[in-house]
Amino acid sequence: MRRTILSALCLLAAAVVRGQQPTPGAAVRADGRAVNTRAAVQLLLETRKPALAFDPGFSPEEFNRWKRDVSRAVTALMQHPAAGEDPAPQLLSDEERDGYRLQKWECYPLAGCAVRFLVLIPGGVSAAAPAPAVLCIPGSGQTKELMAGEPELAPAFELPAAEKRNDMARQFVRAGMVAVAVDNPCTGETADLEWVSPKYRGYDYDDASRVLLELGWSYQGYASFIDRYVLEWMKRQPAVRHDRIVVSGFSLGTETLMILGALDREIYAFVYNDFLCRTRERALAMTLPGNDGRRHFPNSIRHLIPGMLTQFDFPDLVAALAPRPVICTEGGMDRDFRLVERAYAIAGNPSGCRCLHQPRFADPAVRHDVDSIPYGISRDDFFRLANVDPKNHYFKGETIVPWVKDLVVR
Amino acid sequence: MRRTILSALCLLAAAVVRGQQPTPGAAVRADGRAVNTRAAVQLLLETRKPALAFDPGFSPEEFNRWKRDVSRAVTALMQHPAAGEDPAPQLLSDEERDGYRLQKWECYPLAGCAVRFLVLIPGGVSAAAPAPAVLCIPGSGQTKELMAGEPELAPAFELPAAEKRNDMARQFVRAGMVAVAVDNPCTGETADLEWVSPKYRGYDYDDASRVLLELGWSYQGYASFIDRYVLEWMKRQPAVRHDRIVVSGFSLGTETLMILGALDREIYAFVYNDFLCRTRERALAMTLPGNDGRRHFPNSIRHLIPGMLTQFDFPDLVAALAPRPVICTEGGMDRDFRLVERAYAIAGNPSGCRCLHQPRFADPAVRHDVDSIPYGISRDDFFRLANVDPKNHYFKGETIVPWVKDLVVR
Repeated sequence: MRRTILSALCLLAAAVVRGQQPTPGAAVRADGRAVNTRAAVQLLLETRKPALAFDPGFSPEEFNRWKRDVSRAVTALMQHPAAGEDPAPQLLSDEERDGYRLQKWECYPLAGCAVRFLVLIPGGVSAAAPAPAVLCIPGSGQTKELMAGEPELAPAFELPAAEKRNDMARQFVRAGMVAVAVDNPCTGETADLEWVSPKYRGYDYDDASRVLLELGWSYQGYASFIDRYVLEWMKRQPAVRHDRIVVSGFSLGTETLMILGALDREIYAFVYNDFLCRTRERALAMTLPGNDGRRHFPNSIRHLIPGMLTQFDFPDLVAALAPRPVICTEGGMDRDFRLVERAYAIAGNPSGCRCLHQPRFADPAVRHDVDSIPYGISRDDFFRLANVDPKNHYFKGETIVPWVKDLVVR
Repeated sequence: MRRTILSALCLLAAAVVRGQQPTPGAAVRADGRAVNTRAAVQLLLETRKPALAFDPGFSPEEFNRWKRDVSRAVTALMQHPAAGEDPAPQLLSDEERDGYRLQKWECYPLAGCAVRFLVLIPGGVSAAAPAPAVLCIPGSGQTKELMAGEPELAPAFELPAAEKRNDMARQFVRAGMVAVAVDNPCTGETADLEWVSPKYRGYDYDDASRVLLELGWSYQGYASFIDRYVLEWMKRQPAVRHDRIVVSGFSLGTETLMILGALDREIYAFVYNDFLCRTRERALAMTLPGNDGRRHFPNSIRHLIPGMLTQFDFPDLVAALAPRPVICTEGGMDRDFRLVERAYAIAGNPSGCRCLHQPRFADPAVRHDVDSIPYGISRDDFFRLANVDPKNHYFKGETIVPWVKDLVVR
């Protein structure tokens, strides 16, 4: 911890020496105003508190009313188009694997688009003997093929070997559940120029995101619309117990998870495989200029949902999942975990959330347990203060699969 | 023209050789659907036509009704906050210049922000002898000081000498009009880290834009809110003829001009100093991958107004200015000029718009006069096809000032 603070201080000092204020707030005058636009905009972000933040003092009735408000706000933000007269999904292939069947389907959620997904069905599961099911949503740069333990569809999509442990769909099917694996838009089979990329440099999510934003939509609005369509399809499958559907999100996929959770009260449980953080706080704090002398918003525009930060933040959306079970597997701030735990207590299911830290931060003595994050810091410092272990970011199947199995096979 | 087509063909061929489709539309299947997300999103943009596009067949009554609809839609898109109890603007300095006075003011349109602007008042103008006035909105990278012909406030803000001809405020005051010069947000005095930039590398508009977008606002929403506040202040000045206020926008400033024009029916006339183009068409067409193997949206997120392209495009907004006089000075597509001219004819003021091409394209024989732009082209090819001369992009005072003077001194 001492090293963390020292290195943060060194970075701040270096920025000041370069004449660069680590936080735009430094340009705010004694009268509380700034001529500097970036500083004035920082103040706007700071003072416009989310209207639908979770309140730990909620009564159960207030909590339920708040959940409905959150659901309505998420519906408005996501801008899902009305369902049309889409052709029925088509089965493209059906193959045997070791202990399960692998099906590939194509569906048509929207005019002009065809969406493919993989369905892994454990041996012995059928309409006569339906099983619980998991919708598996990957992280950035990952494909449905990776989640299913299948070969990538193009050499350019290959990831380093260490990524193979993110085969969440295969892990679930081996544990006896139907696993449905989707691609995030712009990834793998849905990619554009990356098919012929001379070498892997990551997918371009931003160009498509920008077009969607121009249309008043967003990457996450589009992704959640498609995934919700697949989720509804899952509910209609006779081999699936539609009252035992889990949504499992890894990294980028946790965003879709939270949105689906707010939109669909029928989802039975959730796997949140990332650290939990407040994206608004991160934007306020991570303002230290980079080596190029500029400040950089913490993430790219594929995460931009215009207006979301005026409504709530990610821990609020996880709190709004209560009382439905959730497992959070990669830590974050104890402050936010306490907030989620409080929601589950209010909702009458105090054991419904399992909040786990990364092994490196499992001991409370090594964790930072702070109420707020200082402004003017770098990404690395944010990660340290928020107990994030980015090198150990993977699908924590060893913990998750038994937890889900215990829950849904009851 | 032959060279243009040849070079476009060469670029397309190079992209195809690299295995890159110049347009995402190539991934659309025979059934009209694409698995490729970028292609599906391209189809969305293509098929969702703007709801409030100008119709050359409008009757005068339909045209007026349409203008009200446009105005309402712009109001919704701009998200201007309700006016608060702001302190009165303060005069910071008042100095003599050659033939006019230079005042610097500060106003407070929004909590947390102080906005400075310059006011240039011709000798002899007073409450007893008020003058027409021009609100001058600069282009990207330009400051209010540049427009006023004053020294920059920091060495890092200095522009190449050729930019000095963009002193539009000084040109207007020398012609006998009160000129008010504002900064675009993030520029010059409103800059952040650029104050101490070791060398000029352009302003960072994107970081502040991103924060505004997160808050459900936009760079243009913020800029137009501030400029409208200054415009309202101008109307209250006794030395200003409030029925003879002109808005003059250069480059980036033309966007604010169009917005102010839709929001405020009292503005007397407009100077549009840029080429006129359809931003939606540009986004559809400019999809040729760059040298980095990626497609790039034609402009940065400071131009992003979420949802705008579902409503109208820039030529529609210029058409909606009719019958109030406008001068467009840097060309574009004849097709779009004809549309604007048609609007002025419908509005009963056919001579109200003056649409000028760049000298290089003044001769109709050298202009491309096309109805549509092919998809899969580069920025350079778009500029060529749209008769844009980027090297001759400057404030065309020699044409504009006499036109404005003739109009307002009547």
